Amino acid sequence: MFYELNMFITKAQGFNPAWQNKIIKHTTYISLLLLIWTTAIFAQSHPNLILTTEGVKAIKSGGDAPLFEQAVADAKSEIAYSLAEGIKVPIPKDAGGGYTHEQHKRNYKYMNLAGNLYQITGEKMYAKYVKNMLTEYAAIYKDLPLHPVDKSYSRGKLFWQCLNEANWLVYTSQAYDAVYDCLSKKERKNFEENLFRPVADFLSVENPRFFNRVHNHSTWGNAAVGMMGLAMNDEELINRALYGLPIKEGANLEKDNDGGFIYEKGTAKAGFLAQIDHAFSPDGYYTEGPYYQRYAMTPFMLFALSLHHNKPDLKIFEYRDGILLKGVYALLYQTNQAGEFFPINDAMKGMSLATGAVISAVNIAYGLNEDPQLLSVAKLQNKVLLDHSGYAVARGLHEGKAQPFFKKSVELRDGAKGDEGALGILRTLKGEEEIAVLFKYAAQGLGHGHFDKLSYSMYDGNTEVLQDYGSARWVNIDHKAGGRYLKENKTWAKQTVAHNTLVVDGKSHFGGKYDIATTHHSDPYFFDIKNANVQIISAKESNAYEDTDMQRTLILCNGDDFSSPILIDVLAAFSENEHQYDLPFHYAEHFMRSNFELNTNLPKVMGEKHGYQHLYQEANGNIDSDNLQFTWFNENKLYSITAQAAAGDEAIIARIGANDPNFNLRRDALLIHRKNKAKNVLFLSVIEAHGKYSPVTELPENPYSQIKSVKVILHNKKYTIFTIKDIHNTQHTFMFSNQDNNAESIHKVEHEGVVYEWTGVVTRASSSQ
Amino acid sequence: MFYELNMFITKAQGFNPAWQNKIIKHTTYISLLLLIWTTAIFAQSHPNLILTTEGVKAIKSGGDAPLFEQAVADAKSEIAYSLAEGIKVPIPKDAGGGYTHEQHKRNYKYMNLAGNLYQITGEKMYAKYVKNMLTEYAAIYKDLPLHPVDKSYSRGKLFWQCLNEANWLVYTSQAYDAVYDCLSKKERKNFEENLFRPVADFLSVENPRFFNRVHNHSTWGNAAVGMMGLAMNDEELINRALYGLPIKEGANLEKDNDGGFIYEKGTAKAGFLAQIDHAFSPDGYYTEGPYYQRYAMTPFMLFALSLHHNKPDLKIFEYRDGILLKGVYALLYQTNQAGEFFPINDAMKGMSLATGAVISAVNIAYGLNEDPQLLSVAKLQNKVLLDHSGYAVARGLHEGKAQPFFKKSVELRDGAKGDEGALGILRTLKGEEEIAVLFKYAAQGLGHGHFDKLSYSMYDGNTEVLQDYGSARWVNIDHKAGGRYLKENKTWAKQTVAHNTLVVDGKSHFGGKYDIATTHHSDPYFFDIKNANVQIISAKESNAYEDTDMQRTLILCNGDDFSSPILIDVLAAFSENEHQYDLPFHYAEHFMRSNFELNTNLPKVMGEKHGYQHLYQEANGNIDSDNLQFTWFNENKLYSITAQAAAGDEAIIARIGANDPNFNLRRDALLIHRKNKAKNVLFLSVIEAHGKYSPVTELPENPYSQIKSVKVILHNKKYTIFTIKDIHNTQHTFMFSNQDNNAESIHKVEHEGVVYEWTGVVTRASSSQ
Repeated sequence: MFYELNMFITKAQGFNPAWQNKIIKHTTYISLLLLIWTTAIFAQSHPNLILTTEGVKAIKSGGDAPLFEQAVADAKSEIAYSLAEGIKVPIPKDAGGGYTHEQHKRNYKYMNLAGNLYQITGEKMYAKYVKNMLTEYAAIYKDLPLHPVDKSYSRGKLFWQCLNEANWLVYTSQAYDAVYDCLSKKERKNFEENLFRPVADFLSVENPRFFNRVHNHSTWGNAAVGMMGLAMNDEELINRALYGLPIKEGANLEKDNDGGFIYEKGTAKAGFLAQIDHAFSPDGYYTEGPYYQRYAMTPFMLFALSLHHNKPDLKIFEYRDGILLKGVYALLYQTNQAGEFFPINDAMKGMSLATGAVISAVNIAYGLNEDPQLLSVAKLQNKVLLDHSGYAVARGLHEGKAQPFFKKSVELRDGAKGDEGALGILRTLKGEEEIAVLFKYAAQGLGHGHFDKLSYSMYDGNTEVLQDYGSARWVNIDHKAGGRYLKENKTWAKQTVAHNTLVVDGKSHFGGKYDIATTHHSDPYFFDIKNANVQIISAKESNAYEDTDMQRTLILCNGDDFSSPILIDVLAAFSENEHQYDLPFHYAEHFMRSNFELNTNLPKVMGEKHGYQHLYQEANGNIDSDNLQFTWFNENKLYSITAQAAAGDEAIIARIGANDPNFNLRRDALLIHRKNKAKNVLFLSVIEAHGKYSPVTELPENPYSQIKSVKVILHNKKYTIFTIKDIHNTQHTFMFSNQDNNAESIHKVEHEGVVYEWTGVVTRASSSQ
Repeated sequence: MFYELNMFITKAQGFNPAWQNKIIKHTTYISLLLLIWTTAIFAQSHPNLILTTEGVKAIKSGGDAPLFEQAVADAKSEIAYSLAEGIKVPIPKDAGGGYTHEQHKRNYKYMNLAGNLYQITGEKMYAKYVKNMLTEYAAIYKDLPLHPVDKSYSRGKLFWQCLNEANWLVYTSQAYDAVYDCLSKKERKNFEENLFRPVADFLSVENPRFFNRVHNHSTWGNAAVGMMGLAMNDEELINRALYGLPIKEGANLEKDNDGGFIYEKGTAKAGFLAQIDHAFSPDGYYTEGPYYQRYAMTPFMLFALSLHHNKPDLKIFEYRDGILLKGVYALLYQTNQAGEFFPINDAMKGMSLATGAVISAVNIAYGLNEDPQLLSVAKLQNKVLLDHSGYAVARGLHEGKAQPFFKKSVELRDGAKGDEGALGILRTLKGEEEIAVLFKYAAQGLGHGHFDKLSYSMYDGNTEVLQDYGSARWVNIDHKAGGRYLKENKTWAKQTVAHNTLVVDGKSHFGGKYDIATTHHSDPYFFDIKNANVQIISAKESNAYEDTDMQRTLILCNGDDFSSPILIDVLAAFSENEHQYDLPFHYAEHFMRSNFELNTNLPKVMGEKHGYQHLYQEANGNIDSDNLQFTWFNENKLYSITAQAAAGDEAIIARIGANDPNFNLRRDALLIHRKNKAKNVLFLSVIEAHGKYSPVTELPENPYSQIKSVKVILHNKKYTIFTIKDIHNTQHTFMFSNQDNNAESIHKVEHEGVVYEWTGVVTRASSSQ
């Protein structure tokens, strides 16, 4: 017993064994020892990771909270079968989607639920379930070889990759914390020595390439080791998690299986605090984009909350000016009206605020700041955590405290210092539907980034007006390469032509080379949302192509002047050499009409690389008027593009699907506005969500564009002046300064006898004829 | 005044003017006159068409009915702008979708609403609005030439086709009835002489080809003339509506602009009662299918209700064993779980129970039978009529009387006598989702029919598992041929290969010739839904191809034996000559995997006619095993086909879109199972809705088929015996008698040493290995 106590203290306080030996030898120090022991016991009060003793008390004694009660009932029901059927801890064999993979995932999820249920209900059977499962894992773990599926840069033992093993530990640490008081010392010793410490060591010292970089995989690794360190009260593990392993200098820049460099960033630092320092921009933007941020928020928030409970002096939620909570809000802003994340980079479409990771993030954030707007998000999620924060959310909702979550137009800077471009989001209302425009002028976004400088996507409510393809993948669906990224993700989805941005000479930005792309970013030029009816973003890109500079300005107009909001898209390219300029509009479906004659052809493959090898040209047209107009129909809504055209311009209607032997790509349609053999070009396009249709009344509303014509008056590196005429003959003139973004500057341009004069970057004038 | 009274009686009773003159001359007859006058007044009590004096009283004095109050508020709001802005009765100019067309549509709709509002609220301004609008119409109507758009077999004057003109009169008659008491005799005379009678005559005696056949156009014509006859108390018009014009013998079989023959059927009879006799089968099925039935139900129900109020002795709702109400229920059965009509024939997808026509039908039916199940439909519709039946529905809902509407599996016979084939619907539940199978072995369905003998479509909840393409059209959308049928409707949508049924030698049924197709129908062979877990339909077709007979049997299995319902599709063709047999499966999207090697190719056009000219082959595979298995993904669900294959079988993956210069067709995908150079063939296929996927949890459920193999044991004209083995190695053997559908017959077949013996048409045996 004394030995155990001794070991216990050793583990608990990370004492130097030599010093400890001295203590044991000097019985005069017994009183000190007891004091320390008491402190240790106090410090180790369980639960104190995500659940806390006080939190559990509050839940048990608090008022009604139907959503929380539902969460308890759901959890009971979810694990009921496993509880009755018995523990299953199979020898690891399958990759993602396969049986053993899914079973081990279920196991950590169920252990976590059972641990929470034990705390909330007091029913011992739940604790026993966790204990039994841990016993089985402890019996096999140390002897497990590396996982037989060899497809990861860092294979796990239970899973094919360390990442899943870290997930396992994050949840298992919570389960252990929750049932800690039910376990005998012997059991704890068994678990800690034969399971937890080995897993934690495996994920860190044995896999530094997994653990020791700035990357979402490592965040999971850090949180896993740190949370288990907190649960075991193992300072060494906690410190390893917070500060990383000692950095190896001059490590090779190998690539991981997400395509990112190992040791790409953060070679100077590692560990959880370094993740926080590097992963987020000062605005809470995560350089890989919201799909990955959502996933990464879980270890950030869970480990942070655990630290908040156990190491309050660290003030983790105040770290970097409260960056973690900023990250939660940044994540919420990066969604369409349905709450689905904008699918930039390697994102799967359909992932939304309703996902578990965001439920955790929103619940934990609400537990900290009690922002009633977060309750609206929780209402949409309709599910809460099984902890005190989840209870608080459920109570808040039950008490009617929710306020609408206001998603503002916002510019989220990229880069740890906020100086690596940005993601700009403009929003305005069309009746009850929100028109949202997501403009990407950020950094590459690490290994999951796409070659999509100055690309944007546009939403009309939940409908994609101009889509971002997202990634070519079916996560967890075995039929499609075991649920992993498909090769078309690289050959199509990442390529520039798969996005709504300029392709020069049929080549992707940076030649499609990640190593180059990742060293550059676009530059914000102007962001102004003061006038809600004329919101503007402008950004520049000068590295994507060697001899071509680009500037794109998006102006979202609304208000009485327009029957529905219009997006003005002004894309300029400057080059000293002649190029072919392709501007794709990914409208997906379904062509309705064009103002140019369509020459349809048998589908022909458009190129050999940079994504063009996946495109079929289905039709083209030579634009012989000053404007190109194109109307399409999607989800019972009608959209139009009206663009300025010049002699020689070509419109190509294309469809994705060429060179796709396994039918991995969606057969979506796109329009390409092509300008051949040009040096400096300006694409001036107006995109509108003007109409809708009801298949029940069979009546269309506003099936035609409200734009009669668009016209460039003057365009050079310094200024762009253009007009938009609507069907009522009202003419809107926009004057824009391309090189001076000082709000006080006075600009004066004379052109064809007309003097244009304005102050600041942009102005708009309207006149009726 | 006396003159007016006199005229009034003349009009009202259809008196012989000569006789009337005598009355006037003989003052002794004054008392008689007063008696008659009183009767006339009584007979003409207004409103009495759709609204009735009693109904209005009941509405005004009845209890709360929120949905009705909402309908009143909606109606007020809908016409508020027009009420303030003033009447607009433009000179007719545009076709469907254009301004004058839509304005005249709005006008009759608003007049009807205003009339109802006047009755319900008592506010005179609504009556005045109707009066003013009628005044404008009366001022121009007689002098209007035929509509300038010459695209209909029966041009209207206000509209490009008489059909819309009849719509106008159906609603205007209600408006007139509602405001009748507010009008001076002079006003009535003006309207009746200069507007109503001229429109009624125009639609009937001046357009017999429109008025005098058995066709939904004529039903509108009959109802229009009849309802205005009732409103004006004009027996001659009423009789004309009920019994038609005298039949012209030997009229030419010209085609109307829907492709149907003028005077196709009903040359022996015409008028409303003939419509009822011919339009519906004894089960209430309407041979053109639910999309057209929905449209046709409005004149049937409105005129019938008007007759019910005015000519109760006619007992119109008891006519033909209560066929009109049977029609309402038949219509409700022909919907998927979302309440959308099965899009057979020239149907637009998305048309649903929520449409105004079905609201009318359901409200009127409820007003007559008070079936609480109808209230569930009304709840889904969330809108009620502005009459007493609508009020009754709203009251019923408010009082919580609604009961679930049970959509049973049902066979709806086709043909006026019920002997022209049928439409069979099988339904079963998969959790909360309904698997529905619609099997079409009916008559051609008049001019809107498709060449789709023995075709079926399948639904999983609201998702199409195997689709019916529907029609190639965007109703009312000007961009697409003015909203009319597109030429691809004929060249693609109607063709056999556009359906899930057998195509022999690349030719459509009946060679795609309507004149031949319309003289034939398929034959029901067996329909049995007694066992809810083994529901069966079998039907035969012997006319679609000259030398090939077909039989198709669909078996929908559910229950503990299956993890999800399976549909067994047994399609046999018998011929003495060799043919190419193509069986398309219109899965739409997205290919996941096949058990055969895919050879993808550049899209190549599959043929020159019968719809093949619109198909691109994208890949093919030669089946070298006994089974073909194919899995796809649609709306986050996973589906599979497992089919028996024989040496030489080919699988073709195709996509719609070839020879479609205006992008009128959807680019949906299909699988074609092809058997070359065969005489007798059997296609045995199992279709399953086995899996689903959540983009939020990113977890698939049951991504793989539960079927291991299917195998034909024995097949000839007399018997078909086959087995289906599932992944648990349970083998299900089905024995089917193809020629003897007597439930008492005992069948005994010996094959390869095994004796198969059963009673009745079909039996199933299961064994585990």
